[in-house]
Amino acid sequence: MTSFLTQLSKQELSANGLDGFAYGYRDRVRFYELDALDHVNNVVFLKWFETIRVSYVQDYGFTSYTKDDPMLVVRRVTCDFLAPMFQNEEYVVATRTTVLKPSSFVMDYAVMCDGSLRATGEAVVVSLEQDGKTRRKHYRQAYEKIMELDKPAVPA
Amino acid sequence: MTSFLTQLSKQELSANGLDGFAYGYRDRVRFYELDALDHVNNVVFLKWFETIRVSYVQDYGFTSYTKDDPMLVVRRVTCDFLAPMFQNEEYVVATRTTVLKPSSFVMDYAVMCDGSLRATGEAVVVSLEQDGKTRRKHYRQAYEKIMELDKPAVPA
Amino acid sequence: MTSFLTQLSKQELSANGLDGFAYGYRDRVRFYELDALDHVNNVVFLKWFETIRVSYVQDYGFTSYTKDDPMLVVRRVTCDFLAPMFQNEEYVVATRTTVLKPSSFVMDYAVMCDGSLRATGEAVVVSLEQDGKTRRKHYRQAYEKIMELDKPAVPA
Amino acid sequence: MTSFLTQLSKQELSANGLDGFAYGYRDRVRFYELDALDHVNNVVFLKWFETIRVSYVQDYGFTSYTKDDPMLVVRRVTCDFLAPMFQNEEYVVATRTTVLKPSSFVMDYAVMCDGSLRATGEAVVVSLEQDGKTRRKHYRQAYEKIMELDKPAVPA
Repeated sequence: MTSFLTQLSKQELSANGLDGFAYGYRDRVRFYELDALDHVNNVVFLKWFETIRVSYVQDYGFTSYTKDDPMLVVRRVTCDFLAPMFQNEEYVVATRTTVLKPSSFVMDYAVMCDGSLRATGEAVVVSLEQDGKTRRKHYRQAYEKIMELDKPAVPA
Repeated sequence: MTSFLTQLSKQELSANGLDGFAYGYRDRVRFYELDALDHVNNVVFLKWFETIRVSYVQDYGFTSYTKDDPMLVVRRVTCDFLAPMFQNEEYVVATRTTVLKPSSFVMDYAVMCDGSLRATGEAVVVSLEQDGKTRRKHYRQAYEKIMELDKPAVPA
Repeated sequence: MTSFLTQLSKQELSANGLDGFAYGYRDRVRFYELDALDHVNNVVFLKWFETIRVSYVQDYGFTSYTKDDPMLVVRRVTCDFLAPMFQNEEYVVATRTTVLKPSSFVMDYAVMCDGSLRATGEAVVVSLEQDGKTRRKHYRQAYEKIMELDKPAVPA
Repeated sequence: MTSFLTQLSKQELSANGLDGFAYGYRDRVRFYELDALDHVNNVVFLKWFETIRVSYVQDYGFTSYTKDDPMLVVRRVTCDFLAPMFQNEEYVVATRTTVLKPSSFVMDYAVMCDGSLRATGEAVVVSLEQDGKTRRKHYRQAYEKIMELDKPAVPA
C-alpha cells in the first residue's frame, strides 16, 4: 500500500481506478471535515480539489505564488457528489489538465475511495500578471510538462 | 440600510441589484474567510451558498433536517467567481429555485457587493427518504410556496 | 432587539448579561459551524474570538494589518466550554482588554446565548514590528481608548 | 523517513524531539490552513489537536462516538503559539494523557517542525453518559492502556 500525501505514479493511480491521471495522492477523512449530517461536507470536496490544485501548479512550475510569478485565478468550479464519505475513510484524490491554452487551463478532479468514485469536479484557471488583469502566458517548462504528462486538448 | 442576517424583501433585493430574487440577506466578510492571497477564498463562496440554502429549505418548509422529514442531498454545485472580495466588505447573498420537479430542484445563487456581482452559483438538490435512496416528493406547502415566490420552470 | 453584526453599546451588552464589556455584537450559528455531534464545534468558539479580536483591534486603532502598522501576534489562547450551542441559535459575543502593557495586552471573551454563558476565553497578544521580533509600543490613541473603555489592569 | 498520517512509535517520536509521547503522526501544512497573514492560522493548531484527540480516543478504546459508548466532552482547551508555520511545512503532532481520573482526563499536545516546537496545548476532557450530564467511568481497557503508554498522574 502506498503512503499518505506522497505523490502516486500513473501506474498506482490506475491501480486505484483512476486511469488517465498522472497526479494524485492518498489522504484520510478527518473529523473536522464532517458536518452535522455525519458525513463529509460537500464543500470539503472543493477544499480537497483546491489543495491538490495548489500542489500541482507548484510542482509543475506554473507559479510559486510569489511576486514575480503568474497569479493563477480560478474562474469557475463545479463538483458532482456521487456518494457520501465518512470519518476515517481513506481515499485517493487526483487531478489533471484536460484543456491547455497559452494563458489558461481546465483541470478535472476525482475522489476514489474503496473502489468507488465519490466525487468529480472541474476548475477553469486563468494565468494573470500580478495586476490581476493582464493575461500572462504559462512558463514554457510548465506548459511542456503538462503536455507530456496529461496530454490535454489544445484548442486551435 | 437594512440589517445583517435578516431576510430582505423582494423589493430590497431588487434595490440591491438582485432582481428576480425573493430570498436573501446581508452579511459581512470575516477574517477567517480570507486566504493567504488576502481575499475571500473561493471555497468560502460555496459555504455562503450552503448557509443560505439551509436557511431557505428550512424557512420554506422543505425539511427541518430531523428524522421524519425528507433528506435533501446536493448532487452538484457550480460557482463562477466574477470579482475578488476583501476583509470587512458587506454583501448581499440571495438564492431562488429556478427549476422545480416533484422530488428535486435547481437553485441559483448570487453575491452582490458595492454594486457589482462578485459570484454566482448553482446547485442541484434531490429529496430522498431517510434511507438515502428512495425519492420523496416535496411537501405540498413547500412546493406551492416556491411556485408563488420564485416562479421556477416546471418541466413537463 | 438589536441588529446582527452591529456593535452593541455598553448598556445593550449589560442588558444581555455581559456586564463590564464595552465591545460586542450579535450573531447567529450557521450550519457550517456544527460538527458531526450536531452542535457548534469547539474550535468554532475560538474562530468567533478571533473574528471579534480582529474587529476590535482595527476599530480601536491598534493596527490596520497593513505594512507600516504593528503586527499583532497571539501568543496564547484558552477557551472554557460551558454549554453546547446549536443550529440557528442567536448569541452575543463580547470582548475586552483586562491587562494592558506598553506593547502587549490580555483580552477576554464571552459568548452569551438565551440568558446563559456558553463559553469564555482569553488571549495574550503581543505587538511587534513587521520583522516579527522587535516589540513595538501601542499607538497612544489606541492605548488611551482601551484605558477609557475597558479600564484594564496596568501592571507596574 | 516515516510516512504521513501513520502512527509513529515512541522511538520515532523521541527521534523527532518529542520525548515522552507515545502517540503522534506526521502531516503537512495545506493551503487552506493559512490565513491572510500567510502563515498557519492560530485556530488551525486547535483543529490539529482535535483531529489527533479523536484518533487517540478511538484507537485507545475510550469511545467509538456511537450510541452506547461514552460521550467525551471537552471542557477547556489552551494553546501556546511558539513559532509561525508556513505552506507545505511537514510537522509531527503528538498527544498524551497527563492526568487520568475515573471519568475524565487531561491531555497535552505538541507540534514539532524542522527541529523546533511550534505550538503546545492542553485539553480537559470529561466522559459522560449519552444524556450529556451523568459522569461515566472510562472503559477499563482504555484506562489500563493509557496507564501503560502515557504513565499519567493519577490524583488520589
